[in-house]
Amino acid sequence: MTTALPLDRTYAEQLDAGDPLAGFRARFVRPADPSLIYLDGNSLGPLPLATQARIAEVVGGEWGQGLVRSWHDWVGLPRDVGDLIGEHLTGAAPGQTLVSDSTTVNLFKLATAALDAQPGRSVIVTDDDNFPTDRYVLQGIAAQRGCELRLIATDMDLGVSEDSLLAALDRDVALVSLSHVAYRSGALADLARITELVHDAGALMLWDLCHSAGAVPIELDAAGADLAIGCTYKYLNAGPGSPAFLYVRGELAGRLRQPVWGWFGQRDQFEMGPAYDPVPSIEQFSTGTPQIIGTVAVQEGVRLLAEAGIERLRAKSVALTSYLIHLADDWLSPHGFRLASPRADARRGSHVTLHHADAWRVSQALIAAGVIGDYRTPDRLRLGPVPIATSFTDVWDALDRLRHVAAAETYKALPVEFSRVT
Amino acid sequence: MTTALPLDRTYAEQLDAGDPLAGFRARFVRPADPSLIYLDGNSLGPLPLATQARIAEVVGGEWGQGLVRSWHDWVGLPRDVGDLIGEHLTGAAPGQTLVSDSTTVNLFKLATAALDAQPGRSVIVTDDDNFPTDRYVLQGIAAQRGCELRLIATDMDLGVSEDSLLAALDRDVALVSLSHVAYRSGALADLARITELVHDAGALMLWDLCHSAGAVPIELDAAGADLAIGCTYKYLNAGPGSPAFLYVRGELAGRLRQPVWGWFGQRDQFEMGPAYDPVPSIEQFSTGTPQIIGTVAVQEGVRLLAEAGIERLRAKSVALTSYLIHLADDWLSPHGFRLASPRADARRGSHVTLHHADAWRVSQALIAAGVIGDYRTPDRLRLGPVPIATSFTDVWDALDRLRHVAAAETYKALPVEFSRVT
Repeated sequence: MTTALPLDRTYAEQLDAGDPLAGFRARFVRPADPSLIYLDGNSLGPLPLATQARIAEVVGGEWGQGLVRSWHDWVGLPRDVGDLIGEHLTGAAPGQTLVSDSTTVNLFKLATAALDAQPGRSVIVTDDDNFPTDRYVLQGIAAQRGCELRLIATDMDLGVSEDSLLAALDRDVALVSLSHVAYRSGALADLARITELVHDAGALMLWDLCHSAGAVPIELDAAGADLAIGCTYKYLNAGPGSPAFLYVRGELAGRLRQPVWGWFGQRDQFEMGPAYDPVPSIEQFSTGTPQIIGTVAVQEGVRLLAEAGIERLRAKSVALTSYLIHLADDWLSPHGFRLASPRADARRGSHVTLHHADAWRVSQALIAAGVIGDYRTPDRLRLGPVPIATSFTDVWDALDRLRHVAAAETYKALPVEFSRVT
Repeated sequence: MTTALPLDRTYAEQLDAGDPLAGFRARFVRPADPSLIYLDGNSLGPLPLATQARIAEVVGGEWGQGLVRSWHDWVGLPRDVGDLIGEHLTGAAPGQTLVSDSTTVNLFKLATAALDAQPGRSVIVTDDDNFPTDRYVLQGIAAQRGCELRLIATDMDLGVSEDSLLAALDRDVALVSLSHVAYRSGALADLARITELVHDAGALMLWDLCHSAGAVPIELDAAGADLAIGCTYKYLNAGPGSPAFLYVRGELAGRLRQPVWGWFGQRDQFEMGPAYDPVPSIEQFSTGTPQIIGTVAVQEGVRLLAEAGIERLRAKSVALTSYLIHLADDWLSPHGFRLASPRADARRGSHVTLHHADAWRVSQALIAAGVIGDYRTPDRLRLGPVPIATSFTDVWDALDRLRHVAAAETYKALPVEFSRVT
């Protein structure tokens, strides 16, 4: 499919010249070192200029000058920004999405609530290659409740198959929790089809959108999705440790009760009454005081994505990753690299993973060569273009440097010990 | 006691001239309106200049330029800043304090862990005037586990009495959770004595330090405290929704297992192994990716308090609040105000609460007069000087304006309906 594409840099320049989103690159803080290429948007997205300015305004103006009075404007942000995510990125009508806590805490809240709403069913299903925090949180819930956590065996390069999911479903299954895009391979699940299969089995479906939100169009309402969580520091570009979001289908909200009965979910919060009496809306899935700086960063990040348009972002993402695969096939296969992501565009999110026997050291040598990607166990190099900010020449230059790193085998001089912090 | 103090503004000016902490006022962003007086540090502390600069550096430099590489420095922050809190504010040796999540989520984690560690005991004790999120979270845990939540009847002006606590303790009590300083009255509990009584009953003690940390010296280790939580947006001046902290006594950490098994508590986190295997240290009480901007704001806030010194801050806080009470006694009693906080300095935190039949409207009229305090149900005006930044003339001017508001009865023209967001 892609083998007909030219291999010369001029072609990348042509793709950039025809890129309708090319202008968005200038909306981000650019590296002081202009040769730096950033292909780790799937870990931490870059800083939008608008976000930098907005944070300065919120800190200096709203906090510094407005002081406690600014809560008048802040208190509605978690829901407003949630609605913005729903409108532009996840296909959710207003009132079903909330910015809150971390992905981990939101998963705990929603999975616990889902189990409580499914009396007589006690099995949680996930896949054995789901993101660690998902697996650990579900392990914890299963251990504390005496439930079974049933693991689907996953192909680490291709994601969860429909057959393996079906084999795990039976009338004991209360909840299925899967990632929309697999963190390791970038495999993209069919959200609507899997939701349907899970519903056919009488279970609730909880989607982790961390690696898809902002890069892949998502239609939660149209798919009849039940629950979802996602982070905002990857493709939403909201900064390190920015708050996560959660989605609860409107008709489910009244039926579910989350376990952390915090005061931000309380009706007439400042009456401070004796008994917990949660609001009948999405805010019942709040816990404590929301982090405001992080929430406005999400707002700015989503506004920027909305301006670009999620369909155009997806088109560019596919163009970038398929081009990357094309170059990798030709240049890197001779050096022991092999694709560890789905080859079909429709089955892939926004990052590409490559096998290499020495992937850890290669990733470090590549960083030394000015290309930031990342490593994932056991033998994978992950390259995640930022659809809104990465150019085709970035991809060409990055792969060009990678083939030189591979050919020169400079990475073999590096320590073999794996030491990573994120 | 205080009635011998002069009532004229010159005396306040003399107190300011003799205040060893007076210079710290200039370390904060000052209101654009120089006549504004801020007495709501117990809700949201003001913005330190150093924090404003640090946030700009973390956003523009560490995130904008460093990108994902900055996690190398960020990953240790929750523990490092926790240790800083322990060293300067809460009397905790290193390795027992962690910046994490919100107060609400931390309370949920620690209370659940404590109950699990106390087999054969199933009663949770708190007081009926504890802060709402504390009561609601404990209600939720009790409801989900089929435990009893036993409420101590509290004097809303004076806090929990030793006798009423003793009456609630028996061999079924697994956990007692109280606030060190009561949010409504400012009543200060005897942390060491109550911890001892709770231990004598074989229960674990969980302290909420939200309204004391940064204003009142705390000695967790010396008191043999088990567990504590606290927020950082009040006296630690870390901004709206900044992350909370938690404390787990070192020897308890290995015995407790918190319920939210997140990947930031995992040993060899980036091995991303199949089974949750928490680190044996305080980080096991982590959940998801920590909010970095908020955590550095905590670091700056604590550094500033450390420079001032918690003992000097306490001395100034007592001087400010006792002076405030002195003026209120003389000026406000004739207008229907009555003290709703302990009169004894040793029994009071850093805010003073006044009864007034029309407290809601008075609080609004006072804001219109340029003094920001706040209202608490049912009939209370809360005035919370910021020990590190409030001057004695601030207190004099604020009380002077309050007596004029009260005398002129302008507040009676305001709507009676209570509408508050924080």
